[in-house]
Amino acid sequence: MTTEHTSIIAGVEQTTPDVVAATTAAAQAFSVYRATTPEQRAAFLESVATEIEADREAIIAAAAAESHLPEGRIAGEVGRTTGQLRMFADVVRVGDHLGVRIDPAQPDRAPLPRADIRQRMVPLGPVAVFGASNFPLAFSTAGGDTASALAAGCPVVVKGHPAHPRAGVLVARAVTLAVAAAGLPAGVFSFVLDEGIEVGQQLVTDPRITAVGFTGSRGGGLALVAAAAARPVPIPVYAEMSSINPVVVLPGAIASGAEDLAAAYVDSLTLGSGQFCTNPGLLFLPKGEEGDRFLAAAGRAVSAATGTQMLTSGIAEAYAAGTQRQAATEGVTVVATGQAGEGADAPAPQLVEAAAEQLDAVSDEVFGAAGVVVRYDSLEDLLPQLAELEGQLTATVQTAESDHADAARLIEVLELKVGRILFNGWPTGVEVGHAMVHGGPFPATSDGRTTSVGSLAIERFQRPVAYQDVPTAIQPAAIRDDNPWGLTRRVDGRLEA
Amino acid sequence: MTTEHTSIIAGVEQTTPDVVAATTAAAQAFSVYRATTPEQRAAFLESVATEIEADREAIIAAAAAESHLPEGRIAGEVGRTTGQLRMFADVVRVGDHLGVRIDPAQPDRAPLPRADIRQRMVPLGPVAVFGASNFPLAFSTAGGDTASALAAGCPVVVKGHPAHPRAGVLVARAVTLAVAAAGLPAGVFSFVLDEGIEVGQQLVTDPRITAVGFTGSRGGGLALVAAAAARPVPIPVYAEMSSINPVVVLPGAIASGAEDLAAAYVDSLTLGSGQFCTNPGLLFLPKGEEGDRFLAAAGRAVSAATGTQMLTSGIAEAYAAGTQRQAATEGVTVVATGQAGEGADAPAPQLVEAAAEQLDAVSDEVFGAAGVVVRYDSLEDLLPQLAELEGQLTATVQTAESDHADAARLIEVLELKVGRILFNGWPTGVEVGHAMVHGGPFPATSDGRTTSVGSLAIERFQRPVAYQDVPTAIQPAAIRDDNPWGLTRRVDGRLEA
Repeated sequence: MTTEHTSIIAGVEQTTPDVVAATTAAAQAFSVYRATTPEQRAAFLESVATEIEADREAIIAAAAAESHLPEGRIAGEVGRTTGQLRMFADVVRVGDHLGVRIDPAQPDRAPLPRADIRQRMVPLGPVAVFGASNFPLAFSTAGGDTASALAAGCPVVVKGHPAHPRAGVLVARAVTLAVAAAGLPAGVFSFVLDEGIEVGQQLVTDPRITAVGFTGSRGGGLALVAAAAARPVPIPVYAEMSSINPVVVLPGAIASGAEDLAAAYVDSLTLGSGQFCTNPGLLFLPKGEEGDRFLAAAGRAVSAATGTQMLTSGIAEAYAAGTQRQAATEGVTVVATGQAGEGADAPAPQLVEAAAEQLDAVSDEVFGAAGVVVRYDSLEDLLPQLAELEGQLTATVQTAESDHADAARLIEVLELKVGRILFNGWPTGVEVGHAMVHGGPFPATSDGRTTSVGSLAIERFQRPVAYQDVPTAIQPAAIRDDNPWGLTRRVDGRLEA
Repeated sequence: MTTEHTSIIAGVEQTTPDVVAATTAAAQAFSVYRATTPEQRAAFLESVATEIEADREAIIAAAAAESHLPEGRIAGEVGRTTGQLRMFADVVRVGDHLGVRIDPAQPDRAPLPRADIRQRMVPLGPVAVFGASNFPLAFSTAGGDTASALAAGCPVVVKGHPAHPRAGVLVARAVTLAVAAAGLPAGVFSFVLDEGIEVGQQLVTDPRITAVGFTGSRGGGLALVAAAAARPVPIPVYAEMSSINPVVVLPGAIASGAEDLAAAYVDSLTLGSGQFCTNPGLLFLPKGEEGDRFLAAAGRAVSAATGTQMLTSGIAEAYAAGTQRQAATEGVTVVATGQAGEGADAPAPQLVEAAAEQLDAVSDEVFGAAGVVVRYDSLEDLLPQLAELEGQLTATVQTAESDHADAARLIEVLELKVGRILFNGWPTGVEVGHAMVHGGPFPATSDGRTTSVGSLAIERFQRPVAYQDVPTAIQPAAIRDDNPWGLTRRVDGRLEA
């Protein structure tokens, strides 16, 4: 069979993306998988990383060919994916995500004695993960959603993205090998591949699925949210959907070096044809001479930039339509248009300037290298515009020390609007670490209380259970007084040293 | 004006429950309120407790008269309410809920340097809280939802329950006094009172409201969930809705003392006319002689029990209809009926036995002292029945040491089904502490990833924000290296001592 139509259902390769078989196997595997010790589960995650590395060359070749992204970028993504798996292995070994809390019995308390109450997190159950088009590895088959769900103790059924079927299958094979090597039930991981939306809808409405991870378009995410909410038993959907990632340039930042800053901005805007969730689609620039210099330099840089082939024809078409719509909007002028790349689906970058009154009309994400610049008079002018923006993944502030008073006020507005605030950098490039937030208020994501990148992401796939007066002999290991896993626990509200 | 129609909008008593005024004031108060230091916020929460105690006698008298609950029970609820506020003051001072994570910069990392990234939780914004009928204090105006939202830094608009308007207003006045005494903007707390559902719907769909806490019926909770999901910007709804709190009696538990256990069961079943979310509505009992003895004793205890006046006529009518429906179900036999109490709305407790095949037909919550007993042959017979139950707040296991092997298997099934598992006790009586979970999978609650009782409840009202390369001079205090609040932080994934 060709990998283009291969699904892997509980270890078995087949051409039918049999959702019921995959979810049934996942549900059956759940009790064994969630009972693994931290060491067993961590070793399994590391083994997934090792298996991916073992097929590294083939995976890079497939993903690069299918995504039209450069091999260097894909190689970096392999490292990110395996690093992410190893980070979650470390998280599992440390075990803080289990959130153990112990309120010991107080038999002599008056007027009533207090029972012994212990709390830990348990995994939700089988999780459906939808691979993203723009990160064929790090946000796909064994990407952040899969790694964090597996780390939490949840079996995973991946809906592979049809834009990179071969890369998806190769990674799925690597995960499958790791499942088998660990002696785990094969249902811990399945991979279904289909080009339509039916398989995805079937997955989200399957009664055995208990949560969903998704990275993609707003329309796709909202459809999954609606399907999940309409189930007899609704389930959480963690959909990372759309963001235009506002950048605020403060006056001090361009007082010297407007040209360098403009060049760095256009580098971020056009990186990978702008196909990043964190692409800086909107930039607020001071009015006046220095702002003019920045804009002129940005225009020159965009004019000199050349498009590269986008991920899919559909994405390139949506980009063309979106940039045309922006250019045709009243109050919007085109600052610069770059060069189309060779071949199909490599449209030119575009930079436009929009009047502040048109902000709403240009606030929908255009996925790709489409930049919008809005000029502002003063902070008083700017703050209400920022407050009116929809929820975003990131906001960037370009400052000098002379701007700090204004920047502090910006933080207060932006931290209610975005998942990550960054200073004097660019939002493209999302570090995988413990402090990262790749999330944000609706519609950046469907659930702003969490993140899809970084170790906090594991908390999406678990829920707390309290154990009251459960006899020591049959307590789960995580909550036992002898603490066999060496966990840091909260006793009577205080973390133990 | 009579308190029956009093709302308190940002400190002003009026007869119109003006939702827009309340939410507008809340939104305006948010920036000042969330900027309070841990000490300021903790002192404010303690002051709310103090103000409630200052009007303790009047509050108890009003709540007892309106709810028909005994004064002693209401007095206990005052203590629980003030204790809860003080617990959250302690939580705020400790500050672990801020979840501070720091991944320090690595300027020399290859191939790319790492930025300095810091994370903390920020409050969501104004929260709508719906008071519950059955706990006029602890789950109402200044109850657990309000206390945890205020602790998180969120202004609160309470929709008072029309079953106890005077108690609601008195408590709202106490909160209002504390807000003023702390010098906080009056919009930090408002209280709207109305007998219809319009005000509640208006509150949940108001664009300034960012989250909802609710304790009540399944119908009411699902209506709020639907309204919140249909907003242009959906918001989380934490609705605690319905539960029949299964009890499993294992053979050892009745091998000696079946009569005592039966009496304790009926005490829990009939406590407060059974008007608890955690009322043990369903009990699984072994077939055989000892089970027969337990059931006969439970029947005698129910026969001897007398109803007390329920919270409202509507609740009493729903109880009457529900118990009649249970009694009329094929395969269900009435074991015993108690005595109706004096006056209106004091229906008799009822105990029925249902064939296992009828489990589904008797699994809807009948709010009140309505017990269902189902007999089982063996654990193999029982486990699939438990697995088929809907999500529940609690499950109780009655055991002796001889049952431990079976009990361990029960835990594995029950922990995927409920929020709290308790052994050899009764589910009524929910300890307010750090390890408590008062929550559970749908439909026990609308969001099983959390709890509405205990200190973890604060996490419902916040979300993470990452700060990347933000200059030290303008970092929020929680994430600064000098750690002015003395927080325990996670640095590079490890909790600091």
